[in-house]
Amino acid sequence: MNGIFITFEGPDGAGKTTQLKRLAEELKEQGYDILVTREPGGTVISDKIRSIILDPAHREMVDQAEVLLYAASRAQHVHELIMPALQAGKIVLCDRFIDASVAYQAHGLGIAAEQVKAISAFASSGLQATCTYLLDVPVEVSLSRLQQRASAAAGQGLDRIEQKHAAYHSRVREGFHAIAADNPARVRVIDAHRSEDAIAADIRQDCEQLLKEHISG
Amino acid sequence: MNGIFITFEGPDGAGKTTQLKRLAEELKEQGYDILVTREPGGTVISDKIRSIILDPAHREMVDQAEVLLYAASRAQHVHELIMPALQAGKIVLCDRFIDASVAYQAHGLGIAAEQVKAISAFASSGLQATCTYLLDVPVEVSLSRLQQRASAAAGQGLDRIEQKHAAYHSRVREGFHAIAADNPARVRVIDAHRSEDAIAADIRQDCEQLLKEHISG
Repeated sequence: MNGIFITFEGPDGAGKTTQLKRLAEELKEQGYDILVTREPGGTVISDKIRSIILDPAHREMVDQAEVLLYAASRAQHVHELIMPALQAGKIVLCDRFIDASVAYQAHGLGIAAEQVKAISAFASSGLQATCTYLLDVPVEVSLSRLQQRASAAAGQGLDRIEQKHAAYHSRVREGFHAIAADNPARVRVIDAHRSEDAIAADIRQDCEQLLKEHISG
Repeated sequence: MNGIFITFEGPDGAGKTTQLKRLAEELKEQGYDILVTREPGGTVISDKIRSIILDPAHREMVDQAEVLLYAASRAQHVHELIMPALQAGKIVLCDRFIDASVAYQAHGLGIAAEQVKAISAFASSGLQATCTYLLDVPVEVSLSRLQQRASAAAGQGLDRIEQKHAAYHSRVREGFHAIAADNPARVRVIDAHRSEDAIAADIRQDCEQLLKEHISG
């Protein structure tokens, strides 16, 4: 596959979506062919699965079902959208991917990491990101940003995952740090407790280097 | 767990649902506490997943997503409904279970059986049926019954799985036979190309023996 697959990871409230959009605009201006997408979601079927996962009414959902629904959504997303885009030579920017499953489900929920990884690998037929930007903020910062977002959006509360308690979110953050330590060549940890501009400048600089290497390689 | 978990397997059109209902009525009359359920489905979340799986509009669904959606539906069904019923000492009668995934997805779609089994075992936390009635009919019989059912139900066509071609359904039938050969103690193959009464009599007789052994054991 000739394209480049870049993922953005980190907790909700870290600024992933904002930074992903900024990088996408930047790359488009430079003439690159870009696909912007997100997990869970990205296709008609994946979006229907997403709505089951995130529905706050589904408090009875068991952990195994959650893991398998994320994986099902990913399977459709990878094969229907991401792989064809990479085969067409595009740069794919994706909001969350396998690292999120490992951080939230293995570290957060306590499901064996090897099982989460095996199910994710089945779902994605082994596809892994070329490069991952991990936006890192302290738990209290991401949670307070989420609360502000929820009260700003009239009538829209936190979704089922966001409502989990702070200890869970701490384990998730530790999970992301462990993933970064295990994958130093792929994962770039970005200090996201700074201004949007400062974060965007770091990512832009790193990505320029990545593209230069990809083209020359 | 004190209950008994009985599953009905076989192709659509073999008469599973009819026979399951007849056995349930019989056992209720004898004073047993029964739970009748089905896969995919059985709970609110599982039914929502079922509707994504079977929607005829979802022609683009990839095999990996199908496997994972069935497993997600099963995970919720097992943990929310089946396990608590078994723990309460009930007899659970379930229309389809793991054997259906192995027959349809491994044998039918060609996905590695070991992967389908591993994902199913994760979903069900290792729960397996005490006894399985495999209703066996030639492919042309089950397909012609399905066609009749579809034309009788005004406006209701075949669902996405039923629409697959006959070679696929032949592989599924061979898959069920292979499962029966591998699990002779658990799986009873029932010749379902006979009258409803003859089939029901066989199942009733076998089940009486099973209950006698369970109570004396």
